[in-house]
Amino acid sequence: MSLRLSGSREQGVAMGMLAGVESRSLTKEPTRERQMETEKSQQGAIEESGNFRITFLPDDKTVEVQRGTTLMEAAQKAGVHINNLCGGEGVCGRCRVRISDGRVQADKHSISLLSKEEIAQGYALACQTRVNRDMEVLIPAESRLEEAQILMHEMPFQYGPPEKIRVAKVPSDPMTLFDPLVQKVHLKLPEPSLSDNMPDIERVIRELRKKTDQHDFEVSLCCLQGLAAKLRDHDWEVTVTIARRGDHWRILQVEPMDTSERAYGVAVDVGTTTIVAQLVDLKSGHVLGVEGSHNLQARYGEDVISRMIYACSREKGLNSLHQSVIRNINQLISGLPGDRGIALEDILAVVAAGNTTMSHLLLSLIPCSIRLDPYVPTATFYPQVPARELGIRINAEGILQTIPCVASYVGGDIVAGILACGIADKPRTSALIDVGTNGEIAIGNNDWMVCCSASAGPAFEGGGITHGMRATRGAIEQVIIEDGKVSYKVIGKGKPRGICGSGLIDSVYELVRNGIIGKEGRFNPSTRQERLREKDGRIEFVVARAGETETGEDIVLTESDISHLIRSKGAVFAAMKSLLDYVGLKFTDMDTLFVAGGFGNFLNIPKAIGIGLLPDMELERIRFVGNSSLMGARMALLSTHALERAMHIARGTTNIELSNYQPFMDEYIAAMFLPHTDNRLFPSVNY
Amino acid sequence: MSLRLSGSREQGVAMGMLAGVESRSLTKEPTRERQMETEKSQQGAIEESGNFRITFLPDDKTVEVQRGTTLMEAAQKAGVHINNLCGGEGVCGRCRVRISDGRVQADKHSISLLSKEEIAQGYALACQTRVNRDMEVLIPAESRLEEAQILMHEMPFQYGPPEKIRVAKVPSDPMTLFDPLVQKVHLKLPEPSLSDNMPDIERVIRELRKKTDQHDFEVSLCCLQGLAAKLRDHDWEVTVTIARRGDHWRILQVEPMDTSERAYGVAVDVGTTTIVAQLVDLKSGHVLGVEGSHNLQARYGEDVISRMIYACSREKGLNSLHQSVIRNINQLISGLPGDRGIALEDILAVVAAGNTTMSHLLLSLIPCSIRLDPYVPTATFYPQVPARELGIRINAEGILQTIPCVASYVGGDIVAGILACGIADKPRTSALIDVGTNGEIAIGNNDWMVCCSASAGPAFEGGGITHGMRATRGAIEQVIIEDGKVSYKVIGKGKPRGICGSGLIDSVYELVRNGIIGKEGRFNPSTRQERLREKDGRIEFVVARAGETETGEDIVLTESDISHLIRSKGAVFAAMKSLLDYVGLKFTDMDTLFVAGGFGNFLNIPKAIGIGLLPDMELERIRFVGNSSLMGARMALLSTHALERAMHIARGTTNIELSNYQPFMDEYIAAMFLPHTDNRLFPSVNY
Repeated sequence: MSLRLSGSREQGVAMGMLAGVESRSLTKEPTRERQMETEKSQQGAIEESGNFRITFLPDDKTVEVQRGTTLMEAAQKAGVHINNLCGGEGVCGRCRVRISDGRVQADKHSISLLSKEEIAQGYALACQTRVNRDMEVLIPAESRLEEAQILMHEMPFQYGPPEKIRVAKVPSDPMTLFDPLVQKVHLKLPEPSLSDNMPDIERVIRELRKKTDQHDFEVSLCCLQGLAAKLRDHDWEVTVTIARRGDHWRILQVEPMDTSERAYGVAVDVGTTTIVAQLVDLKSGHVLGVEGSHNLQARYGEDVISRMIYACSREKGLNSLHQSVIRNINQLISGLPGDRGIALEDILAVVAAGNTTMSHLLLSLIPCSIRLDPYVPTATFYPQVPARELGIRINAEGILQTIPCVASYVGGDIVAGILACGIADKPRTSALIDVGTNGEIAIGNNDWMVCCSASAGPAFEGGGITHGMRATRGAIEQVIIEDGKVSYKVIGKGKPRGICGSGLIDSVYELVRNGIIGKEGRFNPSTRQERLREKDGRIEFVVARAGETETGEDIVLTESDISHLIRSKGAVFAAMKSLLDYVGLKFTDMDTLFVAGGFGNFLNIPKAIGIGLLPDMELERIRFVGNSSLMGARMALLSTHALERAMHIARGTTNIELSNYQPFMDEYIAAMFLPHTDNRLFPSVNY
Repeated sequence: MSLRLSGSREQGVAMGMLAGVESRSLTKEPTRERQMETEKSQQGAIEESGNFRITFLPDDKTVEVQRGTTLMEAAQKAGVHINNLCGGEGVCGRCRVRISDGRVQADKHSISLLSKEEIAQGYALACQTRVNRDMEVLIPAESRLEEAQILMHEMPFQYGPPEKIRVAKVPSDPMTLFDPLVQKVHLKLPEPSLSDNMPDIERVIRELRKKTDQHDFEVSLCCLQGLAAKLRDHDWEVTVTIARRGDHWRILQVEPMDTSERAYGVAVDVGTTTIVAQLVDLKSGHVLGVEGSHNLQARYGEDVISRMIYACSREKGLNSLHQSVIRNINQLISGLPGDRGIALEDILAVVAAGNTTMSHLLLSLIPCSIRLDPYVPTATFYPQVPARELGIRINAEGILQTIPCVASYVGGDIVAGILACGIADKPRTSALIDVGTNGEIAIGNNDWMVCCSASAGPAFEGGGITHGMRATRGAIEQVIIEDGKVSYKVIGKGKPRGICGSGLIDSVYELVRNGIIGKEGRFNPSTRQERLREKDGRIEFVVARAGETETGEDIVLTESDISHLIRSKGAVFAAMKSLLDYVGLKFTDMDTLFVAGGFGNFLNIPKAIGIGLLPDMELERIRFVGNSSLMGARMALLSTHALERAMHIARGTTNIELSNYQPFMDEYIAAMFLPHTDNRLFPSVNY
C-alpha cells in the first residue's frame, strides 16, 4: 500500500472535527462480541482461534485479544489508559502509540495525523490499528494519563484537616443553615397500652415530630415491613433515617437501637474530565476525605460532544457510558472510608453535580438532543432516586440527589458553583465563569440571574494544541520570557511533557509582551529570536527543547496553537460581554468575578487579563475558586436550605442561547485580538 | 393404643379454643421440606424413598407424598380444599375426613373432636393424620367448599349490565366526582425550536397542565429514561399515565402515540373468606366484569386469628399468607379481561379494601400484635406502591392503593363501606354494621364518626355450630316452623348439608316464636315436639332429617348452638348499643342502619330484629347492602375525591376499644336474652 503523506496534524484534526465523525460505521461491535466469547474459551485454544498477545509498555501489561481487535480496545481490556479525544473516531490523534517492531499498516487516519518520520518509527493511532500478530506497544508519555497526580494538583484546596462546611470566600455563611439532606434520629418510644394503642408507624412519627419539629413524613412500604418486630425486639428503641424530598421528609429506614452516630454522605463533582468525591460526616458537617480520578468515560471520548456521539450512534452506547460513571463513583466511594471504620451502609446519601450531559449519563437519560439544534435536554430537574436503583453502592435505602441544571449547556456544576460562591444570596451583582471546553458564564444577584455558554474549544484543557495537555504531571503550567530567555515551571517538577491551559495563557501573554507575536497572534517577522524556527513550512516557538523534555521532542507553540487560544479566550470574553450587555451592565458593575475551571492551579490572573480572557478589573475582585461544583454539592448535602436554593437558582436563571445571537457574533470578532480590538476595555494592559 | 372416649364435640372445640393453640410445635416444617425435595426426585424411586399415593374423593385426585405428611398437606399439594378453621392446630374439627379402609390411628385431637362411632367408621382430622401407607380419603360434604357457588350467591348485586359508578341507595351521587385515581392523557406536543427549547419533560408537563388543570406533577426516573426517543420517534405524540398520590399527581409512564382508550382498573374486596375483584373501565366508569373466589389463605386457617397465629408462629408463615393472597388476586385479575381484548398491561391500578389483618397480609406487614392486647397494627394508612413491588401482575408501572383502616379490628373494608353508604356525607346520623366473626359497627354523619368491633364469634358464618356452614350450596338459608312443621330453603336447591347464618337466625326466631325454646334460649321441657330428641345426654332440635340431607345425617340445633348464636347476636347488639350510648344517642336517632355481612342473601330483617340482633327500627330504615367494601373500593378507584374521603373517614373515626369498656360488658349481659332483657327496646317484638 502506498503512503500518502499530506496535511499537517492541525489540518488533520480540523478536518476530522468537521467531517467523518458521524459517518463512522459500527464495524467494531461484532469484533468486540467475538472477543468476549473468546474470553470465555479455554486458553489452550488461543493460537488456533487467532488470538494474540499484546504487551503495553511502560506498564508491562499483557492481554490476549482476537485478530482484528484495535489496540485501543486491547488497552481497555488490559486496563491501560490511552488518551482519546474523539471517541475512537480516528480524528483527534491523541492515541498515538509506537509499535516496537515498527511494522505498521498505516491507515488513512494515521497518515493524515502522523508525520512521515513518525510512521517510519512505528507510530500509529491505537484506535485505528488492528491486531494481526503478537505486539509490543509503547504508550508515549503524551498519550498517557497518570492518575495519581491529578487530584493533588487540581484540587489542593480539598485537602487539609476536617472542616465544617464553609465557603470562606462567600459573605453568607451556610453554617447557619446546617440541616443535612439525610438525617438519623434516635428515638425511644413509649410502649403501647390500651389507652395509647396507635399503629406502630404513627408512634414512630409522633416521636419524630417531637425530635425534628417537622410535621409530615412520607413512609415507604419497605419501612413498614418488619417494623413491628424491630420495635418489639429492641425495647422500642430505634433510629430512623429521614431524607428531604421536595417539600416533605421521607422515612428511608428504621433500624433497631441507636445507630445515629453512623451517618455519612458523599458529595460528587461529576466532571467531564475528572470525578471527585468527598466523604462528609452528616452529624458534624466535617469533611473526612476526598478521592478523585479521571472520568473513566474518557475511553469513549474525551469531551461531552464525543460522548454524546458515542452514546447515540451505538447500540448500548448510553449504557456503556452510564455504567462507566457509576463504576467510577463506586470506586471513589469505596476508597473514601479508608481505615475510619465507616461501612458503605453508613453512607446514606450522594449529592452529585455535573454538567447537563454528565447528569444525563449519570441517570441514564438519552443525551442525544442536547448537542443538536435546538439543544433540548430530557430534563433539567432530576428526581431524587434510591442510589441502588442506579447501582450506586451505599446503604440499601440511601439516595442520590442530582443538582438541577439550567439548560443543555449550563449544568448542575454551574448551579452548584453559583450556590457555592453565594452569588444568588447577595444584592450586589457578581459573576461566575467556568472555563473548560465550554465556557459557562452566570451573572446575577439575589434578584435575578442570567447565564450562557460559549463553545470555547478544548484549548484551555490542552486540546487542539500541538503539545497541549491537561494540568497533570509533566505539564508546563507557568512560563516567563525575559530577554529572550524562557523559564517555565512543570507540574510534579519532572521533565515537561506538554503545556496545560495556564502555561498556554502565560506563553501567549509573554510572546506578545516580548513582541515575538503581534496583537493579532502572528509571529512578528522582524523579530530575531533563536527559539523561533520553521518546520514543515510552519513557524514554531520552542518553549522547551528536546533535550529538556520527557518525550525527547521539542515542545513548541505554532501560530495555529496561538490562534486556537485566541478563539477560545475570545469566545469566553465575548460571551461575558454579551451577557453583561444583555442585562445593561458594564464590567465595572460586577462586585466579584469568580473563576472556576481546569486550567491548572496557577492561573495567573494578570496574564489572563493581559490576553483578554478575563476583563480588566481590580485584581482583588477576581477570585479563582477551583472546584466550586464540588463545594456546592457538599453544601446541598449538608443543608436542605442550600438544596432548595440550588433548585431556586436553576429555576430562576435565564439562559441566553448564544448560537444565533448576533451581538455575540460581533463581540466574538471584536475579541479576536490581544487583548481586544477595543483598547478602552483593557486600560491597564500595556505590552 | 387405647382410645379414650370422652368429651362432647363442643367441649372439644371450646377447650381447643382456650388452650393448645400457641403451644403447638413446628415439627411439620422439616417434613414439608423433605416433601419438596422428593418432588424433584425421579418417580422410579418412589417406593424406596417411602412415598405413598393418596387419592382424594369425590374429586378423585391422587398425589404422591412422603411418609409423615399430614392429609391436610397432601390435600394442599393435590389442590383439593379441606375446610379448616384453626390453621391446622387440630382444635376446630372442621377438617373431618373419612379414610376408606377405616384404619386410623386416632390421636388426642381426633378423640376429643370425633364420636366413638365416627372413629370406628374411619373418620379422622386431616390436619392430624399422617400418611403411613397408600390411602383413599373421602372428604365429606361438610368439609368441602364448592367455590363456583360462592360468588353467585353472595354478591348477586355485582352483576348486571355495565353500570356507571353509582351507589343508588346513597343521597350523594359520586358520579359528579368522576375523576379516576389513574388516568391516561393523550398529548400532541409542539416540536421544540430555539425559541421554545424547554427540556422534554417540561414540554410534556406543560401540555399535561393544559389538559388536566393540574399544576404539579411528580416524575420518576424511569419516565425520564427513554423519553427523548419516544417523543422524537413518534412525532411528539404520546400518552401519559398519571396517578394521584396524596396531594399531587405522579407521572407513571409515557407511551408513544395514543393509547388513552386502554385504561382499566381493578377494585378488590380482600375478605377473610372470599376475595372479589371487579374490572372497571377508567374512561367510562363502567364495570366490565367481576370474579370471586375463596381466599386461598383458608388453608392456613379460616379466620383472621388463626391466620395471625400461622403467620407469627412459623418461619416464613407471613410470607406464605402474603404470597397466597397475591396469587389469589393475580388469578382473579387474569380471569377478568375474559374475551374483551384487554391486556394485563392495560390495567393501571388496583384498589384493595380489607380488614386490618388482611391489609397487613396483602402488604406483607407483620400482623402479630394486632391480636394481642393492646391490639396495635403496624399501620392503618398504607403507601401507594407499584403493584409489581408486591408481584401483582398488571401494567409494569401500575399501582396498588390500599384503603386505610381505623384500628386493629376496624379495617379498610369498614372504611370503604362507610364511603359506599355515604354515611360520612350526610348531616343525619346513620350506622353501618358488618357482621362476621367480628361485628364491626360505625355510627356517624358528615361531622363525626365512632366505631367499634366486638368479637361475635363465628356463629353467623356457621362456625362453632354443630351443623353450621357458610352461605354456599347446600346451606339451609331460610327456615319456617308452623304448627310443628318445619319448612326450609336450601342454597342451590339440592339437599341440605348444614345451616348458614341466615338459616340459623330464622331457626332460633322460629323456635322461640313457637315456644320450643324459652327467651333465655333453653328448650322448653313442657313443649311436646316430635323434632326434639335427646342424644348423648343433650337435647337437639332436628331441622332436617337424615333422609333429606346430603350427608345422610340429621341436621340439628343443640342448646349449645342456640347459646352460641345468642352470645354472637348479644355481642353485636351490645356493641351497637354501647356505641350509641357513648355518643349520647338512641336507636331512634339513627336515620338509616346499613347491614353488611356474610349471613347469606336472604337475611330476614324482621327475624333478625326478633332475636335481638338488629335494633327494633322501622324496616324501611334498615338496608342490607351486601359487599359495601367492594363498592367503596370501586368508588376510590373511580374518584380521587372518594379516595380522599376514605382517608378522611379513616383519620376522623374514633375507635372505641370495647375489650375493657365496662358499659359494653353490662350491655352484653343484658342482651343474653331473646330478644333482650329490656323489652322496651323491642316494642314490636311479640312472640
